Formats: sequence, C-alpha cells, structure tokens
Amino acid sequence: MKLKEILDYLNISQDSNIEISGLNGLKEATNSELSFLESSKYISSLKDTKAAAVFVNKEFKEDVPAGTLAIVCDEPYINLAKASKLFAPKLIENSGNEAIIGENTTIMPNVHLGKNVVIGKNCTIMHGSFIGDYVKIGDNTIIYPNITIYRDCKIGDNCIIHSGTIIGSDGFGFAHTKEGKYIKIYQNGNVIIGSDVEIGANCTIDRAVFSSTIIEDGVRIDNLVHIAHNCKIGRGSILVTQVGLSGSTTLQPYVIMGGQSATSGHLEIAAFSTIAARGGVTKSIKEPKKTWAGFPLIEHREWLKLQGKISKLLK
Amino acid sequence: MKLKEILDYLNISQDSNIEISGLNGLKEATNSELSFLESSKYISSLKDTKAAAVFVNKEFKEDVPAGTLAIVCDEPYINLAKASKLFAPKLIENSGNEAIIGENTTIMPNVHLGKNVVIGKNCTIMHGSFIGDYVKIGDNTIIYPNITIYRDCKIGDNCIIHSGTIIGSDGFGFAHTKEGKYIKIYQNGNVIIGSDVEIGANCTIDRAVFSSTIIEDGVRIDNLVHIAHNCKIGRGSILVTQVGLSGSTTLQPYVIMGGQSATSGHLEIAAFSTIAARGGVTKSIKEPKKTWAGFPLIEHREWLKLQGKISKLLK
Amino acid sequence: MKLKEILDYLNISQDSNIEISGLNGLKEATNSELSFLESSKYISSLKDTKAAAVFVNKEFKEDVPAGTLAIVCDEPYINLAKASKLFAPKLIENSGNEAIIGENTTIMPNVHLGKNVVIGKNCTIMHGSFIGDYVKIGDNTIIYPNITIYRDCKIGDNCIIHSGTIIGSDGFGFAHTKEGKYIKIYQNGNVIIGSDVEIGANCTIDRAVFSSTIIEDGVRIDNLVHIAHNCKIGRGSILVTQVGLSGSTTLQPYVIMGGQSATSGHLEIAAFSTIAARGGVTKSIKEPKKTWAGFPLIEHREWLKLQGKISKLLK
Repeated sequence: MKLKEILDYLNISQDSNIEISGLNGLKEATNSELSFLESSKYISSLKDTKAAAVFVNKEFKEDVPAGTLAIVCDEPYINLAKASKLFAPKLIENSGNEAIIGENTTIMPNVHLGKNVVIGKNCTIMHGSFIGDYVKIGDNTIIYPNITIYRDCKIGDNCIIHSGTIIGSDGFGFAHTKEGKYIKIYQNGNVIIGSDVEIGANCTIDRAVFSSTIIEDGVRIDNLVHIAHNCKIGRGSILVTQVGLSGSTTLQPYVIMGGQSATSGHLEIAAFSTIAARGGVTKSIKEPKKTWAGFPLIEHREWLKLQGKISKLLK
Repeated sequence: MKLKEILDYLNISQDSNIEISGLNGLKEATNSELSFLESSKYISSLKDTKAAAVFVNKEFKEDVPAGTLAIVCDEPYINLAKASKLFAPKLIENSGNEAIIGENTTIMPNVHLGKNVVIGKNCTIMHGSFIGDYVKIGDNTIIYPNITIYRDCKIGDNCIIHSGTIIGSDGFGFAHTKEGKYIKIYQNGNVIIGSDVEIGANCTIDRAVFSSTIIEDGVRIDNLVHIAHNCKIGRGSILVTQVGLSGSTTLQPYVIMGGQSATSGHLEIAAFSTIAARGGVTKSIKEPKKTWAGFPLIEHREWLKLQGKISKLLK
Repeated sequence: MKLKEILDYLNISQDSNIEISGLNGLKEATNSELSFLESSKYISSLKDTKAAAVFVNKEFKEDVPAGTLAIVCDEPYINLAKASKLFAPKLIENSGNEAIIGENTTIMPNVHLGKNVVIGKNCTIMHGSFIGDYVKIGDNTIIYPNITIYRDCKIGDNCIIHSGTIIGSDGFGFAHTKEGKYIKIYQNGNVIIGSDVEIGANCTIDRAVFSSTIIEDGVRIDNLVHIAHNCKIGRGSILVTQVGLSGSTTLQPYVIMGGQSATSGHLEIAAFSTIAARGGVTKSIKEPKKTWAGFPLIEHREWLKLQGKISKLLK
C-alpha cells in the first residue's frame, strides 16, 4: 500500500510514494515498514530504526534517522492504531486453494478447514475444530475436539492440543483517545508453535500484534493458561494451570511457572528459573537457575523466611 | 401463572387468584411479581417492595407492606428456589420464527441459529457457534468460531467476541436445605451487551437470576475473564486476563481491573478506579479515580509502602 | 499384553510370561498390573504392593515382596512413562456399536456420538458437543452446547454441564529424561461424575492417569474451575469460580473452596472445611468444619488478626 493512501485515511496531509508492506515496532521494522514512537522511553530505538517511516510527535522529529521518513503528528499511537486496520487480513478468505492433507491424516466430520491450509501426515483433527485460512500443521499432531486455530498460525510436528484451546485470538491491544474511546489495534501477527508441544484444555494463546507469538519446541502447558500477544516461551518450559503471561513476556528455555503464577508485560525470565505457584513477576529475572516466589517476587528461600517472620506477628 | 398454582406446587396451603408474571428481588419486583425475604438484612427493602406477593418467615409478616400479599413459610429462600423452576423457559424452542438475518451478514456452516433470532447487517457468525433462541445481535458484529450464546441474550453493534467465550450460562445459584441438598435457583434472566464491546477468548459471562447481567458500551475484556450473574460493567471499563467478578458486582464507568484481580459479591466500584493486578475487592469503593492494590485491598501507594515495610522484616 | 513384549519395547532384557492388564500405583495395583517405585518415599507401599511386577532401582530390589516380580532398571519412572503408551486406548474407535439413546432424549444436530456410547432417557445433548467413545450418561442430564467429553468418561443422572467445559482431557503428566526431554505419561484412566452435579462453563476436569478422577453426587462447580487428574471431590462440595486443584487432591464431603483458591497436589481436605477466596492449601487439613484463609494457609480468624497486625506496620 502506498504511504500516501495511509496518510489520506488518517487525514494527515503529507505526500509520499513509499510502498509500505506492514506495521512493526521500531526495532523490528524493515525498510518497507511503518513504525511509531509511543513514548520517549523508546527514543534509542527510534534513533536506530530501519523503518521506512515513523509516526512521531513534533518534539522527536530530529531524532528520526536519515533514511526514515518522519510523519509528524499529535497522536502517533492513535494513528498507528487506525492504520492497523488497513493491514488487517480478511476475516474469512473466499477464494484460495483447498486444504492439502498429508497421508494417513484423519479429519473428522464437522471440522472447518480454511483456504490454503496445509496439514501433514498422520494427524487427527477432531470434531468441531476450526482450522483457519493459511494455517499450517506438521506431522503426527493431534487436534482434539472443539479447538479454534485462527488464520495464519503454525503448529509443528508431534504436538497434542487439548479441547477448547484457542490459538491465535487477538491480543488485547487498543489506543485510548482523549475522549475516552478505544481504537482497536488490529493484531496482524500470528502464533507459531514448535514441535513436541503439548497444550492443555481451554487455554488461550493470542496472536502477535506484529510478527509472532512463539512457543518453542518441547514446551508443556497445562489447562486454562493464558499467553498474551508477542510472548516467547523458550524450549522445554513448563506452564502449570491458570498461569497468566502478559504481553511480550519472554521465557528463556526450561523456565517453570507454577500454578496461578503470572507476569506483567515486557520482561524476560532467565533460563531454568522456577516461579513458585502464585508468584507474580514484575521485573526481568537475569540470573538463571533460581527459584522465586511471592508477589512482589523474591527468592523462594527468602519468601519462606519471610512467611516465618510474618507468622510471628501473630504471637 | 396463578399464584395458587405456585403454592400448590410448593405444598403451601394458601389461596389466591393473583396472576404472577415472574420472580424478582424485593427492590426490583413489580406488582405482578413474586419476591422473598432471605435475611433480616433486607428488611427495609421488604417494607418498600412493590411485589404482588412475598415469601417471608412468620416473624416478618408484619413488615410486609399493604398491597403485597405475605406468604408465610419456614424457608422463604428454598421456596423461591423451587418456584424458580416453574418460570424457567424451555431449553430449546421447538417452534417459532426462523432467524431474521440482515443484509451482507455471513453465517458460516455448522452454526446453530435458534428460533426467533435476529441478527443485524454486516455481521459474521463463524463455524460452530451456537446462537440460542430469541438472541438478538446488532450490526457489524463478529462472532468468532465455537462461541455459545444462550437463549434470550442481546449483543449490540460493532462488537467482537472471540472464540470459546460463553455468554448467558447459568449463574451459580442454589438454596441449601437443612438436609444438605442444593435446590437450583433457575437463572431466568439474560445478558445484555452494549455496542463497541470486545470480549476475549474463553470468557464466561453468566446470565442474571432475574433481569440482566449488563456490559455497557465500549467495554474491553481480555481472555479467561469470569463475570458472574447480575454484574453490571460500566461504559469503557477494562478487564484484564483472568479477572473474576462475583455476583452483583457493579463497576461504574471506566474502571480498570488488572490481571487476576477479583471482587466478592454485591459491591460497587466508583468510576475511574484502577484495581492493580491481583487486587481483591471485598467492600464497595466510593471515591472515584483512585488506584488500589492487595488483598485485603488498600490504596496502591500504601500497598507499595507496606511491601517495603514487610521486606524489612527480613533484615 | 505379555510382560515380555513391554520389556522388549523398553530394551530391558528380562524374560517373563506374565500377562499384564495395565499400569497402576503401588497401592492400587492388582496382581495383573505393572507398577513402579519412583522415590524412596513410597518404600512402604512397595513392601505391601500386590502388583504383578514393578520397575525398581537396583538398591530397592530386596524390598520387592515375594509374589511380585522386580524389574531392575535405572529409570523406573521413565520406563513407566514409556510403557504407558502401550496401554493407551485408540484416539477414535473405528468400529463398535452405535450409541444407545434412551427414550425422550434429544440429540441436536452437529453433535458427535462415539462408538459404544450409552445415554439415558430425558437427556438433552446440545449443538456442537462431542461425546467420546464408551461415554455413559445417565437420565435427565443436560449437556449444553460445545462441550467435549473424552472417551470412557461417565456422568450420572440429573446433571447439568455448561458450555465449553472439557471433561476427560489428559492430566498433566510426564517424566523428565536426563537430557531435558519430557516423556508423556499416557493418561489411561477416566472421569466419573455422580448424580445431581452441576458444572459451570469453560471448566476443565482431567482424566486420571490410572483409574478415575471422581466428582461425587451433589457437587456444585462454578465457571473456569480446573480439576487435575486423580482428584476426588466429595459429595456436596462447592467449588467457586477459578479454583485450581492440583493432581490427587481429595476433598472430603461438603468442602467449600472459595473463588481463586487452590491446592497443591497429593493432599486431603477434611469434611465441611471452608477455604476462603484465594486460600492456598499446601498441606492436608485433618480437622473438619474449620475455615481457612491465606497463602500460606492459616485459620481464617487468625488470618483476619494477621491482616490487622500487618496493616499496623503502616502506622
């Protein structure tokens, strides 16, 4: 899409012939993508961006690097939100190829297969499940009944997904206007699940706003777990029931999250960390192989001591 | 239904020709409805009730206002529960009008449309979803795959409901007999969702016991959120993942509930309040625009101080 | 299956003609079942086992009772996990009897009925639900839309199951290899639900690894509740929204679990106990009829006192 068309849609009068392929964050944007500066926190990312163009407030215009076009506007985030609609794929594709199904794969009745779906061999796709357009599933994977996989998501080999789980629903993203309205940020990314992953029943794994929410190989997820948009779950990690991960949480490999534990967004947990049940992680954990507990989070052995001290208050 | 029929069903020997249209709370009941006094806490509501008749214990008989018939019995709540069954609508209507579908609306295969359903224009109802009898959906609304909307519920314009969400399931209501049995209180109300509402995946929104559970315009709800019967979610409120609201919680407009926060029932939260993640609200919040945290709940800045003091216990 | 075949599959060179009917825990195993000693904690169960054979480390060989064959190996739990695959039933039965449906039972369109299903009279099975092979449902039971009941599970009379609930999904079980791989322990048990049980929307009740996860008569379960494999929920117990029970939790009759409360695994809660909202139970509760709160869990009245003392820290 021509940048000119986007700006016309937003009532921004600036001319440009640049061809824009999509939206992305400042760090991730390529030279055909449009980005934005939401807050001065990310100014260093702005200076290093490779984006074709960025929405910025007037005061940050000079920080936009050469080779990137500055689109000066009052509300960069609102404009990004509005523009996201222009890049949203169709809810349902009306045309496209019929699904390609590998040998020895069983598709039960009442399953929906979208356009351009590819499913490997020896899979079983059970009653009532919805396989959206352009979904790709590897070999030997089991999709239990009544699962929904939104368009564009990818699942590897030897996976087991239990009933009622939703893969690729929209991340929780919107911009607030001054008038108290919310402008939806269309979630144009997807979910990519590696191989040898088992996911329990009634989980929700949201698609990324840009690029991908990623579940790496060998991950084990229990029931009723929530994984927000743009999370990355490292290889071999274990998420016990009712865990809730906020947006852009990165778990390095082999992290264990106990039942009902949670994270706030945009943080990273070091490899081989264990978060005890109910632990609430609000800052990145940099040192690997430690065990943490509580909310606020402290080391587990400290948490045990603290509970001892607290119980003495009763004496 | 004649009151006489109800009383015969309950083995209460009292005669009456009054026509009863339904059951309701003391405050809400009209002069064709039957109500009950569960506990002496609600005695002032009893004195002001407009109900046609009320189940009451003998000791409160004199508090029943003129114009309302007192039905004296030992277990008013048990009788109400038993009577609720008589007013329960059919699980499935066998006759009625075929659904009325607005122009440019897409209904995918494998969708169930009940009797007397009305769906506006430009909607998309996706695979596997169940649209119960008498459900009404406005214009431009998207119902993603494998959603269940129980009978009688209403959804406005420009809404997006994500997969696996259940709207209108029964509230959690029953009366205890002395013998340890539970008598189901049939949930004969519905859910009413306004316009411009987005609801995430695998949420549960229970129907009201009487009247309606209400989600007002512009509300944003993340995944795996629970909203109990008779809640009212004010305009523009935001509910983050895994929030749990107990019965008859009222959120005034623009309340923000952080992830995994919760309320106990029958309380109200003032407009523009923010409940931090994991906050547990057990009393009404009357002052607007404040931020709260913890369980028991205190002001967020106090909570931060408190955590500082608690961590000093370790020293 | 001959034990010899199992051992060949595991590359254990030991000869035996014993016929093995299944896998089981040391305590529960019959003299046609194969068991295992995972940790020295369970040595007394080993000494009393009736199992036909057990996987044990060399050091515990002498503790295997006469009449039970010791299969000495380095990793008993890994071998048990691998062997579990051999006993897993088929994902979908291709042959068997058509479902037997009682009189006056309604099966809506788009329902899947597996092989050898038996459903009683006066039931309603609604749109989109999946009734797996060998499932048995009693009389007068309502299965709301889009429910999944995995194979072999049993549901009694007069039950109500709300939409989106998953019954019989796999428990969260796997053995860790030294190389950081997880070997799935096939969950070859089932779920047995008694009579007069109501289960809310989007709950997950996992099947047992061996034998059964049990929900006794009269239990009431709210929405989004998780019940792990091998739990036993005693008669008349009440589980409020978002409760999470870990594996092998036993609730004696009439236990109340408040909203978002949880248990860690392998423990028992005495009859008529109440766990307040958010309570976290990590040890068995032996004394009945008490009310508990907090995490770590203490008596509710102590918890109230403690919160008073804690709030004084702020002064």
